[in-house]
Amino acid sequence: MDTINDDKYKAKDIFTFEFVKTVLKGVGQVMFQNNALTGLLFLIGIFWGAFEEGLPHVAWGAVIGVVVSTLTGCLLGLSKKDGEIGLWGFNGALVGCGIFTFLGSSFYSWVALILCAAMTTWVRVGFNNLLAPFKINSLTFPFVFSTWIFLLAARAMKGLDVEHLATPLLPGYFDFDVHMGFGNLIIYWLKGIGQVFLINSWVTGLFFIAALFVSNRYSAIWAMVASALSLFTAIIFRAVGLDIENGLFGFSAVLTGIALGSTFYTTNLKSSIWCIIGIVITVFIQAAMDILFTPMGLPTLTAPFCVATWLFLLPLFKWNKDKTGG
Amino acid sequence: MDTINDDKYKAKDIFTFEFVKTVLKGVGQVMFQNNALTGLLFLIGIFWGAFEEGLPHVAWGAVIGVVVSTLTGCLLGLSKKDGEIGLWGFNGALVGCGIFTFLGSSFYSWVALILCAAMTTWVRVGFNNLLAPFKINSLTFPFVFSTWIFLLAARAMKGLDVEHLATPLLPGYFDFDVHMGFGNLIIYWLKGIGQVFLINSWVTGLFFIAALFVSNRYSAIWAMVASALSLFTAIIFRAVGLDIENGLFGFSAVLTGIALGSTFYTTNLKSSIWCIIGIVITVFIQAAMDILFTPMGLPTLTAPFCVATWLFLLPLFKWNKDKTGG
Amino acid sequence: MDTINDDKYKAKDIFTFEFVKTVLKGVGQVMFQNNALTGLLFLIGIFWGAFEEGLPHVAWGAVIGVVVSTLTGCLLGLSKKDGEIGLWGFNGALVGCGIFTFLGSSFYSWVALILCAAMTTWVRVGFNNLLAPFKINSLTFPFVFSTWIFLLAARAMKGLDVEHLATPLLPGYFDFDVHMGFGNLIIYWLKGIGQVFLINSWVTGLFFIAALFVSNRYSAIWAMVASALSLFTAIIFRAVGLDIENGLFGFSAVLTGIALGSTFYTTNLKSSIWCIIGIVITVFIQAAMDILFTPMGLPTLTAPFCVATWLFLLPLFKWNKDKTGG
Repeated sequence: MDTINDDKYKAKDIFTFEFVKTVLKGVGQVMFQNNALTGLLFLIGIFWGAFEEGLPHVAWGAVIGVVVSTLTGCLLGLSKKDGEIGLWGFNGALVGCGIFTFLGSSFYSWVALILCAAMTTWVRVGFNNLLAPFKINSLTFPFVFSTWIFLLAARAMKGLDVEHLATPLLPGYFDFDVHMGFGNLIIYWLKGIGQVFLINSWVTGLFFIAALFVSNRYSAIWAMVASALSLFTAIIFRAVGLDIENGLFGFSAVLTGIALGSTFYTTNLKSSIWCIIGIVITVFIQAAMDILFTPMGLPTLTAPFCVATWLFLLPLFKWNKDKTGG
Repeated sequence: MDTINDDKYKAKDIFTFEFVKTVLKGVGQVMFQNNALTGLLFLIGIFWGAFEEGLPHVAWGAVIGVVVSTLTGCLLGLSKKDGEIGLWGFNGALVGCGIFTFLGSSFYSWVALILCAAMTTWVRVGFNNLLAPFKINSLTFPFVFSTWIFLLAARAMKGLDVEHLATPLLPGYFDFDVHMGFGNLIIYWLKGIGQVFLINSWVTGLFFIAALFVSNRYSAIWAMVASALSLFTAIIFRAVGLDIENGLFGFSAVLTGIALGSTFYTTNLKSSIWCIIGIVITVFIQAAMDILFTPMGLPTLTAPFCVATWLFLLPLFKWNKDKTGG
Repeated sequence: MDTINDDKYKAKDIFTFEFVKTVLKGVGQVMFQNNALTGLLFLIGIFWGAFEEGLPHVAWGAVIGVVVSTLTGCLLGLSKKDGEIGLWGFNGALVGCGIFTFLGSSFYSWVALILCAAMTTWVRVGFNNLLAPFKINSLTFPFVFSTWIFLLAARAMKGLDVEHLATPLLPGYFDFDVHMGFGNLIIYWLKGIGQVFLINSWVTGLFFIAALFVSNRYSAIWAMVASALSLFTAIIFRAVGLDIENGLFGFSAVLTGIALGSTFYTTNLKSSIWCIIGIVITVFIQAAMDILFTPMGLPTLTAPFCVATWLFLLPLFKWNKDKTGG
């Protein structure tokens, strides 16, 4: 639990090429990749998609977010150990996308983004302390928790604009009216991957797959399997059509797939079956949390991935000789 | 935390009379009874009540649920230690009643039941790992948590039929308009016991009392005391009338009574006072959670029992020389 | 975790002047002050404000609450160690204010108050056992949790009167229409401090500041800074106007300020910056929880303070040589 030692960043370390790589690794770690090139390709995908959607501030948000949360780790004097492999930054990158997607870009949302991104860095240390006895870690939950605070608070603050958040409603009627056809399905499948960074673009999904292949082909394959399987599950159970078409049943499942399939376990027969069940269960947790938060108009963010992955890691089953899934 | 050892079930163990007893003990463990005959009598009570209500699939659900979750323990290769006393199965039995009571019987709800029942087995291992440092266990919370996921998800999936779930509403007006009279009160009192398995039948309550007496007379007595005391408390505070008449303030209190009165403590003066307070508090937790979930139209299931029992075990008070309540 | 030893209160200890001081310290501990005079001044402030508001039962509730929960500690035979410095009583004092503020005074609300105040004493032992491995404690959460149960339950029980609770609504429109002017701002600032005990009176705020100065001038200063800073933050972000005017963005921030600024850390440059960030974040958590509970019409009580303080203590940063913030 000793989170502070002498191996810290100095001011001079920050204006180096090494530090740029650290920041890029932060983007890569959103999907568990300790790889600066992967992070760069993720960013390119994010910029492509954000500009395509007419939301360029979302892409800039990702950049600001990852930089702010990485610098916060330096300022707090945390041990370099986590920092240099990008573990301070990934929550901040997601905060940047999340805050700007839902609250738009304004003076206030910039302040919120900076506060929220900074906050994820120490919230992560705190949550990891909480979870350490159980041999699991906080995954993207620092992003989820901190962003929830600002998104909910926005509804009680006129300074923050909530028009991009869903209207609070009691759960009720919805349409299952998905436009099938092979081309459409491919688009939903790719969007499911792009939505990991809240980007609603199939091109972004392609960039993300390429980015994963650069670092770890198992991760790339599990991301593709997970998005397909979650799409299939959502269609079979005839889930909310609009969400299916926008890839919103995919992103959490993609993260569960990468986590269980190629991060906390290495891929073998048993771990693959475990991972596939985990992906399917993630779809139900996604649907459940969508409903749970309907009256507050709050998005689930990647919480379904966190909950599912914790559920599948907590039993500490050993599907690999050398790994307990912790 | 080592949940896997060599003492596992083999395929040949499954087609034996011993295994049938294990499954029946699973039903018995819903009320903490390691007794196959008790489980059998519970099942008879469930079948009687379910057929009387015109919901035979609920009874079959209990059977399928307990078998699926018990087999899941075998498939996962868990240590026999918990399995042979029915601890893999009780959550599954409740899942069977819960899923079919609220989602009806359809192809999709059968799939949901099987997934959900299987899931409880490893969720229980995970939750027990979470709670072990605090010397408490997960009680029926694996059933509660897993079933909540599928019941909430059902509102976002046209495949699953939600017409048996309460309509999502903002908490508001209700009637206290209970038909008193000794005969009616006896019926509500017995229904409070029958509702432990979600069965709305006073005859089922009688079967359950008999089943408890077969195994442990203290458990039977505490179940009767708890249902009476919770009924009394709900009437005094003039709680929702329809729920009182259907025994819905009783079932969690009955479980709290058995847990605190005759399971985690043995019955003596101090532990009895403690148990009685626990039963009364359970009624308020039941009412509170009913309101908390009104906007999502989600039933509390046995969560009030879990919360109350944890609150009364966590302080680790030693009311018995040899037991700390853990 | 051994909460019971031989150093307990005897019946004869209860009718002593020492015991009166213990009860007063209980009131003082609401703001972390182990000081009977501070507790007495708090009580005077509470009585002044409650009578001014025409709600004298709220002041009597505080007295009954602190006495009931302190006596519960004696009855449970807990070790004197916590008791004699008022740690059994502070949750009960808040319960007294909370139950009577929101449920009015009636036979039923008196029963609820006594049950709820008593309950906080063992819930505190239980929650502290839960949090001990993480080197944090339960703060005022036993009050929050127990009172939530009774406030929610009240909506399902005609015996308890809910007309003083907010109407359950979906989050929606609100006014930011704060009457500015220096005099008004001073009133809102003082009300922010008075609301720690749910008292809507600026005179009460003055009493509380004086009471804090008697015990610890850093605590007094941090309370004043926190109320001012939270007021400023809420105005800048144009939060719900009526809540700003009633000091409802202040009380949790005041507690965070005292906790981080002068209780778990001693005041130095680094800990002060940490505390200031904590106060600002508390405002967002307050707004977020207000929205989260809108559909149930449930007040946050001091939960935002607990959540914020835990978030800032969990990382275990050492801003003082001798203190880890635990």
